[in-house]
Amino acid sequence: MAHNVAILGASGYTGAELIRLIAGHPDIHITALGADRKAGLEMSAVFPHLRHMALPRLQKREEMDLASVDLVFCALPHVTSQQVIPTLPSHLKVVDLSADFRLRDPADYETWYGQPHAALDLQKEAVYGLTEFYREDIRAARFVAGTGCNAATGLYSLLPLMDGALIDLEDIILDMKVGVSGAGRALKENLLHAELSEGWHAYATGGKHRHLGEFDQELSKAAGRPVAVHFTPTLVPANRGILSAAYVKGDATAIHSALSQRYAAEKFVEVLPLGEVPSTRHIRGSNLVHIGVSAERGGGRATVHAALDNLTKGSSGQALQNANLMLGLAEDAGLNLTPLFP
Amino acid sequence: MAHNVAILGASGYTGAELIRLIAGHPDIHITALGADRKAGLEMSAVFPHLRHMALPRLQKREEMDLASVDLVFCALPHVTSQQVIPTLPSHLKVVDLSADFRLRDPADYETWYGQPHAALDLQKEAVYGLTEFYREDIRAARFVAGTGCNAATGLYSLLPLMDGALIDLEDIILDMKVGVSGAGRALKENLLHAELSEGWHAYATGGKHRHLGEFDQELSKAAGRPVAVHFTPTLVPANRGILSAAYVKGDATAIHSALSQRYAAEKFVEVLPLGEVPSTRHIRGSNLVHIGVSAERGGGRATVHAALDNLTKGSSGQALQNANLMLGLAEDAGLNLTPLFP
Amino acid sequence: MAHNVAILGASGYTGAELIRLIAGHPDIHITALGADRKAGLEMSAVFPHLRHMALPRLQKREEMDLASVDLVFCALPHVTSQQVIPTLPSHLKVVDLSADFRLRDPADYETWYGQPHAALDLQKEAVYGLTEFYREDIRAARFVAGTGCNAATGLYSLLPLMDGALIDLEDIILDMKVGVSGAGRALKENLLHAELSEGWHAYATGGKHRHLGEFDQELSKAAGRPVAVHFTPTLVPANRGILSAAYVKGDATAIHSALSQRYAAEKFVEVLPLGEVPSTRHIRGSNLVHIGVSAERGGGRATVHAALDNLTKGSSGQALQNANLMLGLAEDAGLNLTPLFP
Amino acid sequence: MAHNVAILGASGYTGAELIRLIAGHPDIHITALGADRKAGLEMSAVFPHLRHMALPRLQKREEMDLASVDLVFCALPHVTSQQVIPTLPSHLKVVDLSADFRLRDPADYETWYGQPHAALDLQKEAVYGLTEFYREDIRAARFVAGTGCNAATGLYSLLPLMDGALIDLEDIILDMKVGVSGAGRALKENLLHAELSEGWHAYATGGKHRHLGEFDQELSKAAGRPVAVHFTPTLVPANRGILSAAYVKGDATAIHSALSQRYAAEKFVEVLPLGEVPSTRHIRGSNLVHIGVSAERGGGRATVHAALDNLTKGSSGQALQNANLMLGLAEDAGLNLTPLFP
Repeated sequence: MAHNVAILGASGYTGAELIRLIAGHPDIHITALGADRKAGLEMSAVFPHLRHMALPRLQKREEMDLASVDLVFCALPHVTSQQVIPTLPSHLKVVDLSADFRLRDPADYETWYGQPHAALDLQKEAVYGLTEFYREDIRAARFVAGTGCNAATGLYSLLPLMDGALIDLEDIILDMKVGVSGAGRALKENLLHAELSEGWHAYATGGKHRHLGEFDQELSKAAGRPVAVHFTPTLVPANRGILSAAYVKGDATAIHSALSQRYAAEKFVEVLPLGEVPSTRHIRGSNLVHIGVSAERGGGRATVHAALDNLTKGSSGQALQNANLMLGLAEDAGLNLTPLFP
Repeated sequence: MAHNVAILGASGYTGAELIRLIAGHPDIHITALGADRKAGLEMSAVFPHLRHMALPRLQKREEMDLASVDLVFCALPHVTSQQVIPTLPSHLKVVDLSADFRLRDPADYETWYGQPHAALDLQKEAVYGLTEFYREDIRAARFVAGTGCNAATGLYSLLPLMDGALIDLEDIILDMKVGVSGAGRALKENLLHAELSEGWHAYATGGKHRHLGEFDQELSKAAGRPVAVHFTPTLVPANRGILSAAYVKGDATAIHSALSQRYAAEKFVEVLPLGEVPSTRHIRGSNLVHIGVSAERGGGRATVHAALDNLTKGSSGQALQNANLMLGLAEDAGLNLTPLFP
Repeated sequence: MAHNVAILGASGYTGAELIRLIAGHPDIHITALGADRKAGLEMSAVFPHLRHMALPRLQKREEMDLASVDLVFCALPHVTSQQVIPTLPSHLKVVDLSADFRLRDPADYETWYGQPHAALDLQKEAVYGLTEFYREDIRAARFVAGTGCNAATGLYSLLPLMDGALIDLEDIILDMKVGVSGAGRALKENLLHAELSEGWHAYATGGKHRHLGEFDQELSKAAGRPVAVHFTPTLVPANRGILSAAYVKGDATAIHSALSQRYAAEKFVEVLPLGEVPSTRHIRGSNLVHIGVSAERGGGRATVHAALDNLTKGSSGQALQNANLMLGLAEDAGLNLTPLFP
Repeated sequence: MAHNVAILGASGYTGAELIRLIAGHPDIHITALGADRKAGLEMSAVFPHLRHMALPRLQKREEMDLASVDLVFCALPHVTSQQVIPTLPSHLKVVDLSADFRLRDPADYETWYGQPHAALDLQKEAVYGLTEFYREDIRAARFVAGTGCNAATGLYSLLPLMDGALIDLEDIILDMKVGVSGAGRALKENLLHAELSEGWHAYATGGKHRHLGEFDQELSKAAGRPVAVHFTPTLVPANRGILSAAYVKGDATAIHSALSQRYAAEKFVEVLPLGEVPSTRHIRGSNLVHIGVSAERGGGRATVHAALDNLTKGSSGQALQNANLMLGLAEDAGLNLTPLFP
């Protein structure tokens, strides 16, 4: 049975990625596309790579007819999301891709985002969208808040290791190498090709990256005690992909075994043989996560490497996976894409 | 009904691209994968981006069991192809992706490839694989020879203009900007990232590019008289895509109209509105061709721009499209992929 | 003897490139740097790659002390240049890098730039800055207008062929592949890394590119009759470089000979052996032009290939070369940089 | 006074980089260039970006006339270096760019390189080429062994912190993001543009990277006790640059202060203000090192970021800096290049 969906914020990269994925979905049909500045345009003008598709014209939120819609994907910018979602009909299922509803504690939100939350009731309702760890909650949810793409990458590496016996919870360093599409389509000087393409640099250093709020929340919850990782992202001159190195103290073999067991039944998460490492080029454009573990010399230390595509498994693929659960569809529908290599 | 296929030369880029496409095909099943140097390896070792798939191990040609196979994709290097294909059981349908069987006249083959052809009977049997122009022949064929990727790009631009009334057949210049994956996985110094990534250059200049043999053959056939284009490719520091500019003398509006009519019913070929130009980023990873026409100032001259993905529509996508026809399947099965952008 | 210079528009790419070149100049000293939006900032904040240098702070034009300055480089945006230069003290030598003073005929300016020129007297005074063709005029000039970077690339290829005997002046096609830094540091969606880096496309097609005004002016002047080329640029996903293919009707050997003779004494222009083609990677970051000629099959047609770095020989290197002449210095001072490869 | 030098291994990237730098050196003249496979060729055939220079033809080692040579740069592959250098006239000064003579202890060499050293006497004589830490030894040396490019990047970050009071010497993690030119011009599948350009991955994980031998040697020597870092490099799809993050336990302000003091008088090493981070794009093509320090949240942890160009400061620039000292020339001669940005 076909389900109708609408996408708010369809003129950004995560909106376009949703459309790409849903194009191959047997049971989901897009009936409305929202945008603000670009309302009134055909999608072919905004994203010419979609020009072969029959898609609704972009509309302002208030013009959209949501009467027959079952689920809304909200790919709006941060802050905008918490303004718009409360205005949606309350029977609608919603998958939000913004950062607005990821943190459960309003105080945490205020700490990391610098302002009070404007939709506290919705915030309470939101289920954190890391599918493999909240699957049953998501299946039952009306409202799911997608994770940060960096957060997802780190959480896949670390969540199964939080029992207190496998690694030293006081000593976790996350070093991520991040492609540029995660920054979206915003007009910023440092995102220009001429600025970016021949160099790389760390950013949001010093414990300032907002995804730390998600790491704190989820890792502490899993550990049953406060866990605070040190996280540094580096912007890499390429478009798609996140590669994370989690430096931990623990036995590599035990860590590899724990990760292998945890993900044995997960279709989209693959743990490589011990000692093999993943590459972003091998998951590009797909909903896959590749995880590898390497032992450091001397013993007692290990590195957990993880790779995913920030636009797919890190945001829009995750969103569709969650929508499938919420709509009672096969969880992998529309998501069985082979990575694009080369 | 499922059809079994084998891929010879599965360790190269076109082999991997076939696997990517067939992964989403409802009616085709891969039962054997051939390779030479890499025989004995799992595909996950040769192409880690395919590691989530259950694929046969790579085998030498002589070890492969082709008993239940309906069709073989031959993605072997040039020259090797004409040695191997004659050894295949003669009831097998074959789609060849090499250059070996594209030219009908043995003398032409010898001119462009510098040696006599080693399988003249097969050469006679081969149908040229430009689907939109040889569809019925391909449907009836046992053996189809895939086109060159540059040849396909130029032929889509020019074949509908060959009636002698639309453009000056004596004055056609083809300038193509070509991504590097077309050169394959060969170990050549000029294909190293450090060599290639920050510069671009023309190659095979001076009428020496072998795809000229295909242009001569197909354009002359369509025109009913000899047509010899001038063709210069430039290697662009990016992986996938061919962008062609065909500089012709003729009326842009009439040319646009002829192209629009010719491709109106073609699912994979889209003619943009007059004056709009295509970009390789908008067809990347898909089986689409985008064609645009621009009028030059002063009138009397026009440029026909065409873009396709050399690994998809330019080789493996075309091969699958042809295989679908040869097997009596829906022509677009497995080929409805949305381009990957960004 | 040291000469003092100021740079207006120092926060853009051509401004930074001037500083890079002058850093190695024995006789030129930068005493003032102008900017508008970024006035008040240190250059290290605007261009951290210059942080090791002792440079003046950025100032608004009206704050700059030009008393001891001998020459001003004006790297302002188009239109701004014609507003600012008339306000400079009239004894100052000026090298303008904008498009404002390249066209001698006010009607041509209005045609290509869509508005009347605001500084007609200065326009009359301006010497066109293509050094190798206006050397003596430049040496004597107070005011030099730098050429367009595409214009320079094409003119190096074509100007020595304009005598009417070597090539058919009615049939010249210029196809250029252009790096992205030529578009400057402007915040435009299509210049973002995520938009640009994996694709390429033609732009300003249909005889609309403004550098056509320069081609018309200079080629017609050299030929002594109207010459109108057809020019299509393609934006390549890389930062520096222009590669031009000029498709002409004429004898390749004669063309090669004419170019070789014309540039035999020119230090920065090198004509490669007949049949060899240039690459942008081999002139990157230098003031060099590489020119190659290839014969097309069948005879009677040839391609003149030229490569230069748009930021160096195409703008700031040319500007410094001209300033050297205007100040009575060695023409190559500060310009003997070896290309950066890889 | 001019000094004559020869370069062995001139057909590789470090050889070409030496030529680029020496081209701007007032007192060094290249009289002979050695190569093996490419002996007999002109440099313009091997490196067309050097075609404007008058350079000696490539010769086999045994054909080279070293009679008038003062110093030899040896840019040969590892292992070859220890075979060739002992055959050179013993009065010649030598700067080796290979890995063969970096480790003082023959047992260490055997551990990291898997075979006994073939030139133990020379090994004893070699001075480790990290200029800022061995300046006086280098000035007096006949034979200097250049450092690894990753080793240099990490040592600049860490050597001034080894006194035992500033950071926890048991807990140092080095995560480096490395451009591809460091892998040289070798024909390896994983260095092809099509393989590399759209993804990134860690390599030599698990304490296997050979530069660990250098880290162990130099950090332990500076600390006066064994220090073993954990080091993971990630290959980034870009040509030049190394960006290192050293994760340490210690006070960021004290660390920043120690680094600032240590490098205050060093021309090529710049410590950024506390909290600012370097980028490879800002040192590209130059001999500069940029170092930044960021405090991690919670206190007690800091990250030392360092960026340098692997081909310049990481190898050939360092080699020339050392040669300048060995020849009694100004240490910075030929090395005052401004980074190339964009």
